[in-house]
Amino acid sequence: MPLTTDRMIDILDETHDPARRSWVDSANGHPDFPIQNLPLGVFSPAGDAPRIGTAIGGHILDLTATARAGLLPETLTGCLGADSLNALFSRPAAERRTLRRHLSALLSDPAQKPVLAPLLFAAADCRLHLPARIGDYTDFYVGIHHATNVGRLFRPDNPLLPNYKHVPIGYHGRASSVRPSGTAVQRPCGQRKPPDADAPLFGPSRRLDYELELGIWIGPGNALGQPIPIAEAPAHVAGFCLLNDWSARDLQAWEYQPLGPFLAKSFLTSISPWVVTAEALAPFRLAQPARPAGDPQPLPYLWDEADQDRGALALTLEVHLSTAAMRAGGLSPHRLSRGEATAMYWTVAQIVTHHASNGCNLNPGDLLGSGTLSAADPGGYGSLLEITAGGSRPVTLPNGEQRTFLEDGDEITLSASAQADGYVPIGFGPCTGTVLPAL
Amino acid sequence: MPLTTDRMIDILDETHDPARRSWVDSANGHPDFPIQNLPLGVFSPAGDAPRIGTAIGGHILDLTATARAGLLPETLTGCLGADSLNALFSRPAAERRTLRRHLSALLSDPAQKPVLAPLLFAAADCRLHLPARIGDYTDFYVGIHHATNVGRLFRPDNPLLPNYKHVPIGYHGRASSVRPSGTAVQRPCGQRKPPDADAPLFGPSRRLDYELELGIWIGPGNALGQPIPIAEAPAHVAGFCLLNDWSARDLQAWEYQPLGPFLAKSFLTSISPWVVTAEALAPFRLAQPARPAGDPQPLPYLWDEADQDRGALALTLEVHLSTAAMRAGGLSPHRLSRGEATAMYWTVAQIVTHHASNGCNLNPGDLLGSGTLSAADPGGYGSLLEITAGGSRPVTLPNGEQRTFLEDGDEITLSASAQADGYVPIGFGPCTGTVLPAL
Repeated sequence: MPLTTDRMIDILDETHDPARRSWVDSANGHPDFPIQNLPLGVFSPAGDAPRIGTAIGGHILDLTATARAGLLPETLTGCLGADSLNALFSRPAAERRTLRRHLSALLSDPAQKPVLAPLLFAAADCRLHLPARIGDYTDFYVGIHHATNVGRLFRPDNPLLPNYKHVPIGYHGRASSVRPSGTAVQRPCGQRKPPDADAPLFGPSRRLDYELELGIWIGPGNALGQPIPIAEAPAHVAGFCLLNDWSARDLQAWEYQPLGPFLAKSFLTSISPWVVTAEALAPFRLAQPARPAGDPQPLPYLWDEADQDRGALALTLEVHLSTAAMRAGGLSPHRLSRGEATAMYWTVAQIVTHHASNGCNLNPGDLLGSGTLSAADPGGYGSLLEITAGGSRPVTLPNGEQRTFLEDGDEITLSASAQADGYVPIGFGPCTGTVLPAL
Repeated sequence: MPLTTDRMIDILDETHDPARRSWVDSANGHPDFPIQNLPLGVFSPAGDAPRIGTAIGGHILDLTATARAGLLPETLTGCLGADSLNALFSRPAAERRTLRRHLSALLSDPAQKPVLAPLLFAAADCRLHLPARIGDYTDFYVGIHHATNVGRLFRPDNPLLPNYKHVPIGYHGRASSVRPSGTAVQRPCGQRKPPDADAPLFGPSRRLDYELELGIWIGPGNALGQPIPIAEAPAHVAGFCLLNDWSARDLQAWEYQPLGPFLAKSFLTSISPWVVTAEALAPFRLAQPARPAGDPQPLPYLWDEADQDRGALALTLEVHLSTAAMRAGGLSPHRLSRGEATAMYWTVAQIVTHHASNGCNLNPGDLLGSGTLSAADPGGYGSLLEITAGGSRPVTLPNGEQRTFLEDGDEITLSASAQADGYVPIGFGPCTGTVLPAL
C-alpha cells in the first residue's frame, strides 16, 4: 500500500475556512459538528442496517448512499459501501483528504441540497456503532500528571518510575469489550483484598472509576517486522475519539502485579463513536510543550523536529457527572474536571513509532488510548482516584451528595473541544455511560 | 446460541478406540496425527486458496470439499466452507463432537477411500495458516514453577507474589502478531538499559528468549456482562495448540513497570497450526494435582469438584534447539527441556471462568496462553531465562557451542504428546521458528 509521505498534520485547505457554512442549518454554530469537522462514523437509521456516515450539525449524511449516487471519488466507493471504516482507514491519507474536500464542497453548496437532503437523517433517530472492527487495542500512559498523581499514592517521594521519561509506557488492552458511547457499564465483580483482610473476597467492585483518555485510530499501519519511522507516523493516524477506560481500582490493586491491569479494565471501554479525522484537526496543532529542564532527550528513533513543532493538540477535555438523584431533581450534570490534551508527555507520532519499533504490526482500525489525561492542577484531574486522593477525600456535589468512587446510577460524560484563533471550534460529541448494578 | 452443558471432557466414544485404524496408511502409528487425533486447521494446497482441513498422518483431508460432497452433517456445511475455524468454534460443543464422529467413521471405513482419496493432500505440499482470526489474545501465568523461578531472580526469599495462589494471573497480549509455526522471528529492536548505563540504548535485543506454553482456543464464549460459571467452562474450550511466547528479556526488564510486558512480547507469538480438539484429549484428562498443604482454597467461583477430578492434561512437552552450526554439521536438534502440562497451578476451566468473571466477553477464536510451563526440575525449564539463571550460567550444546540467550540462526521447536494407558498417543505437530538478524 503506497503512502503519502507528506505530513498530513500540516495541511490546511478550504475545508478549514471559518467562513464556510453548510446548507444543513443545524451545522452552523454547532458546538461539535460544524462543516469544518465532518467526522466519520457508522450509524443505523431506525430499524435499518449499519452504514458509513458523517455528522453534520444535528444530522448524519449517509456516505454509503452518497458514494453510490456517484458524488464521491469512485476509488472510495468500495470502502464507503462497508459497514465499518476499516477499509477506508487502510487507504493512504491523501485519499481521506480528498474525501473530506468532496464532503465539504457537497455540504456547503446549496445546489446539492435537493440531491443530498434525502440522504440526511436526524441524528436523534439513529443508532451509532463502533466505527471500526478493532483488531487490537493498546492503552498508553502518557498523561504525565496522571502518572505522577497515581505514582505518588504508592511512592510519595518518587512518583515516576525511572523508565517513564524514556519510554512511552503502554500495555495491551481488551478489544472485545470496547463499546460506543451510551453503553451502560455494569459494575464488575472480581477479587479484591481489603487491607485488613487475610484473604481476598469475590464480589462487586467497590471502587469503580472512570479515566479520561484520548483515543487514536490507526490508518494504513505497517507489516510485521517493519517499523514506522517517526516522520511517517502521522500518515498512519486516521483520527481521534474520546475514550473512557472504566477501571475497578480494588480489583486492579490486587491483580496487577506483576503483569499489569487485566480484569480491572476489561469489563468495558467506552468511546465516542465519531472519528474526528487527523485532517479536521489540522488547524488545532500546537508545538509539543518543551520538556522540563533536566528531562532526558528522547532517543533518536522517537525524535523529529517537525513533530515537536506541530505534534500536540489544542483540545480542551471535560468530564461531567450526573447522579440518579441529580437527574431526579432536574439538576444539570456537574463538571468534575477540565483540562488540556497537552498533558501528553509523548506525542501521538512518538506513541505510534514506539509501538511499531519492535516490528509489531499495527492494522487499520487498531485503537490506541493515550492514558488518562489529567491536568497539573486538581481542577483537571482525569479520574476519581486522583480527585479523591485514592478515595480519602470525597467530592461534594452541588446537591450535597458525596462521591469517592462511582455509585450505581451515576452517569459519566467525557467531552472535547478543539479551539484555535481564527478557526471554527469543533468537538468530538459525547462519550457517556451510566453505571448499572452488578449482576 | 444454546450450549450443551454436558461436560465435554468426560466423553469417551468409539473415536478414541485404540483398535481403530485408518485407510490412510500414513496415519497408523503416526506420532502426532493417528485417526484418534483428527485436529482441525486451515491449509492451502500448493497455489490454492485456504480452506479447512483435518490432519490424518502425513496427509490433510479437505473438509470444505468433504462437506460440499454431502459427507458431513449438513448443519456444519456453512461453517466448514469458511477459510477460518471461527464459525465452527462458535457452534455448541456437541456439534464439534458430531463432526469428529463423522470424520473418524469416514477415515476408518475403507469403502470411503475412492470418494475421499481425491480430497486428500500430502501435508508436505501444503501451507498451514492460522486456524482462526484471533479477536483477542490473553496470556496467563499459571505455570507455577516458571513463576517461582522468575520471581526468585528478583526476590530470592519470596519468589511468588501474595496474589499468585488466589488469582489466575494473566494479561492482554498482542493478537496481530500471532503467526503459525514456521514463521521466522526477526530479532526485535527496542530500548534496553544495561545495569551500568545511565540511560537506555535503542537497538537489537541481546537477550532473545522463547517461552514454552500451551495455547487454548475459545469456543462459543459469552456475551458482555455474562460470566461463565466454572461448570460450563469446558464447553467454551474448542481445543489446544502449542504457543511460543518469544520474549526480549532486556526490553522487558526496562519497559514492564508498572503496566506489564509490552514490546518485549508483541513482535511475534508462534503457535502450532493444528487445533487439537478438547474431544480428542478426552482420554488424556487427569486429576488436577492437589495443592500443597497450606495453599489457600480457591474462591467458590473458581472451584468445581468435577473440574478438579478431570481438569488437568497428560501432556509431555519438549523444547529442542538447533543452531546454524548444528544444522551445517548434520547434528540433530538438542533437547533443552522436557516437562509436563501438570505444571499448571490453575486448570483451563479456572482460567476461562476467571477471565469472564468480570463480564469480559470471550469470542470464538480468542486465544489464551497458559504461561510458561516449566517443570519443577531444571531438565524441564521452559525458557532460557530459567535454564541459564538469567543468563548467568550458559548452556553447553553437544557440539561445544554455548548459549545464554538465542543467537541469529537458532531454531526452536516446541512439541507435545498426550499419553494414557490403553489409548493411542496423539501429538500436536511442531511449533517452530528460526531467529533472523535484526532489520
